[in-house]
Amino acid sequence: MKKIAVFPGSFDPFTVGHESIVLRALDMFDEIIIAIGYNSEKKGFFPIEKRIKWIEKVFEKTPKVKVLSFEGLTVDFCKQHNAKYLLRGLRTSSDFEFERAIAQMNKKILPEVESVFLLTSPENTPISSTIVREIYKHGGNISEFIPKNMIIE
Amino acid sequence: MKKIAVFPGSFDPFTVGHESIVLRALDMFDEIIIAIGYNSEKKGFFPIEKRIKWIEKVFEKTPKVKVLSFEGLTVDFCKQHNAKYLLRGLRTSSDFEFERAIAQMNKKILPEVESVFLLTSPENTPISSTIVREIYKHGGNISEFIPKNMIIE
Amino acid sequence: MKKIAVFPGSFDPFTVGHESIVLRALDMFDEIIIAIGYNSEKKGFFPIEKRIKWIEKVFEKTPKVKVLSFEGLTVDFCKQHNAKYLLRGLRTSSDFEFERAIAQMNKKILPEVESVFLLTSPENTPISSTIVREIYKHGGNISEFIPKNMIIE
Amino acid sequence: MKKIAVFPGSFDPFTVGHESIVLRALDMFDEIIIAIGYNSEKKGFFPIEKRIKWIEKVFEKTPKVKVLSFEGLTVDFCKQHNAKYLLRGLRTSSDFEFERAIAQMNKKILPEVESVFLLTSPENTPISSTIVREIYKHGGNISEFIPKNMIIE
Amino acid sequence: MKKIAVFPGSFDPFTVGHESIVLRALDMFDEIIIAIGYNSEKKGFFPIEKRIKWIEKVFEKTPKVKVLSFEGLTVDFCKQHNAKYLLRGLRTSSDFEFERAIAQMNKKILPEVESVFLLTSPENTPISSTIVREIYKHGGNISEFIPKNMIIE
Amino acid sequence: MKKIAVFPGSFDPFTVGHESIVLRALDMFDEIIIAIGYNSEKKGFFPIEKRIKWIEKVFEKTPKVKVLSFEGLTVDFCKQHNAKYLLRGLRTSSDFEFERAIAQMNKKILPEVESVFLLTSPENTPISSTIVREIYKHGGNISEFIPKNMIIE
Repeated sequence: MKKIAVFPGSFDPFTVGHESIVLRALDMFDEIIIAIGYNSEKKGFFPIEKRIKWIEKVFEKTPKVKVLSFEGLTVDFCKQHNAKYLLRGLRTSSDFEFERAIAQMNKKILPEVESVFLLTSPENTPISSTIVREIYKHGGNISEFIPKNMIIE
Repeated sequence: MKKIAVFPGSFDPFTVGHESIVLRALDMFDEIIIAIGYNSEKKGFFPIEKRIKWIEKVFEKTPKVKVLSFEGLTVDFCKQHNAKYLLRGLRTSSDFEFERAIAQMNKKILPEVESVFLLTSPENTPISSTIVREIYKHGGNISEFIPKNMIIE
Repeated sequence: MKKIAVFPGSFDPFTVGHESIVLRALDMFDEIIIAIGYNSEKKGFFPIEKRIKWIEKVFEKTPKVKVLSFEGLTVDFCKQHNAKYLLRGLRTSSDFEFERAIAQMNKKILPEVESVFLLTSPENTPISSTIVREIYKHGGNISEFIPKNMIIE
Repeated sequence: MKKIAVFPGSFDPFTVGHESIVLRALDMFDEIIIAIGYNSEKKGFFPIEKRIKWIEKVFEKTPKVKVLSFEGLTVDFCKQHNAKYLLRGLRTSSDFEFERAIAQMNKKILPEVESVFLLTSPENTPISSTIVREIYKHGGNISEFIPKNMIIE
Repeated sequence: MKKIAVFPGSFDPFTVGHESIVLRALDMFDEIIIAIGYNSEKKGFFPIEKRIKWIEKVFEKTPKVKVLSFEGLTVDFCKQHNAKYLLRGLRTSSDFEFERAIAQMNKKILPEVESVFLLTSPENTPISSTIVREIYKHGGNISEFIPKNMIIE
Repeated sequence: MKKIAVFPGSFDPFTVGHESIVLRALDMFDEIIIAIGYNSEKKGFFPIEKRIKWIEKVFEKTPKVKVLSFEGLTVDFCKQHNAKYLLRGLRTSSDFEFERAIAQMNKKILPEVESVFLLTSPENTPISSTIVREIYKHGGNISEFIPKNMIIE
């Protein structure tokens, strides 16, 4: 059976930290679906179509990686795509508390899905979408914090 | 003197975790007032009247437990009801940091009120109103996470 | 039925933080047993007989408070003394993680015992037996960190 | 070369905790600029002009301290004012996680600026602008939590 | 290429929490080596030969799982066994801080080894070898905290 | 008045993380004393004379930096050397909790001494003396984790 992992997030925007998690998980799975959660009430900063396009560009030479958007519960999305793994990156211990609650609840709703965590590398630990977005909004240079071949336009 | 405890929260919605805290505190106090904080600016998801009705149903056979709503400072509500105890459940260490600040500030404002903490049981630790509400919004089944005789309608 | 709480610890030495927890819990219980855990392998710094004597002096005018030592599991001690409550003070979030594990395990072993937590007051938060002991060992003045009528000799 | 530190924040309102950080840092620097971040989208509770005026009053006899508002990235503000230090107070470990990410990102953007942290004193640890603001909104007395000569009007 | 994961620890003793991590990781890897770290200076409580034998019994019907002991650096052990994955369970946020430091250092020493984390389930979160050992030492019943077919003798 | 900072620790061994803290604090102070705490009961791994010699070598061209050992309370050492600042590096949030308690206690004992914290840079965050020592003991290569011109022999 194909080992499919879903890597869910808002990726607003996708950062070098996210990229590094996907690259390091590549060998573990047969397919990784980067799943951009869409929330009709909370639209986010960058349009969701752009986020998809930008991430697709990052992985254009990595056929194992797909980029999709979804609305609703992450576990429902997993079920729909026969994904048995939820891939997540851990940066800080406050991340951890939050991720643990989400993962344990997902497990209660859909026990066959396992959450798998990788750590961001030390140099990527301070980089979060929130901070990168703030820098961008204030006209700062974010090129160091997003994947090399990702062009924000 | 009657030992009265106030269990404040937004309970949006009340979960099995909250229920368990109240049940385990029952023997310690003569009366427990479940106090739903009402905020005219931030209305919450479920209407406050429904939240009250639902919780009342959960404790309909437990005369020691009252359900009330309030606006304003929690310590003012305690004073008004001669409650010397503030009851709170602790789930995670991020909860703890927040609860500690609130409790220590309450103590500075009204020193005669003591904050008393119980722990959620391990299986209830991941369950928070926020996550339960998200599941509900996305059409997921939340019956496992709310008290058995509580009917959301 | 008498409400008995056990306040377990090594109290090596007993600090103003510990004293404050006991004083603030006095109204909640009919009896508080300060229970000094004795470990034949790890003897501690101050002799256990002295620790008992010092704490007894602190509460000599508070008949509700008893001081005892014990060896073995805390829950066994509770059972033996018909105590339904375990009283603990919480200082920091690292304390919390540890206390939560202990409390949840105690609950699994003896479900009828409830762990009840109070917070140390802000000014007592940095005071731990470990630090007070270090100051004492190096000849520092610890009188500010131990109860007023407690004489270390 | 003049040692200039920027103490950035929203100070909505400025508290005794903030005041204590500035006072304790006075000897370390030749000038401290209290820099109120202005965000055109998120206006804050107290008007920014009032926040400036109130803080200026607090330090009217301390010529080393200046009060300014700014929009944009904190590091850009530092550059503009030749400030090589970013001064921040640390209260809790959740503060810490957040502050660390911000400081490490600032360092990546402008390596010559160093973030310097002081701790709030124990009695000020629970005091945050958020809680003080909540007390104020509900008509509570906040005079204990703001600098003595600061008059909110 | 065979996907081999090393699950390192002292397992003094192996708990239901450890068992659950191994069982849930089974599908992800072709082989899991439970690697008991041996430290000639710090001998541990249960003899290492017994720990090996007990764990082997737990997985006697799971050929994918091997049990070995090792001395020295975990990454050296991984290299020797062609393991590209280090499997670890995460319980609490203090666990997390520690595990992150270890994992990031391992990555610096041997970049081709990836640390993969699974979460303990909520009911197993409070269970640590340290606490189980303490209960055992004091004559308590630990059968609930160790794998069903593991016999401590 | 000369601004003197004490940077206390066991430095067993001194790491690139420690070095980076000293270098980044150089401009803030007129003198930095690296103070190796000596504990007659807990001797440490590397002999204290070697630790001193190694660190002296690292800063042989930095006259502002002195290396000394001391026994007793850190605040007493500060008093003796007219140091008004205690310099510390912060790595993780568990570090923070511990450092906060120590710093607040030091402040209670000697209010004129201020603890000043710098953050380790992201790439140094996982590096602690404990882990470096473990790698060394097991024959691993630690040259990446200690200052370039520091020779362990």
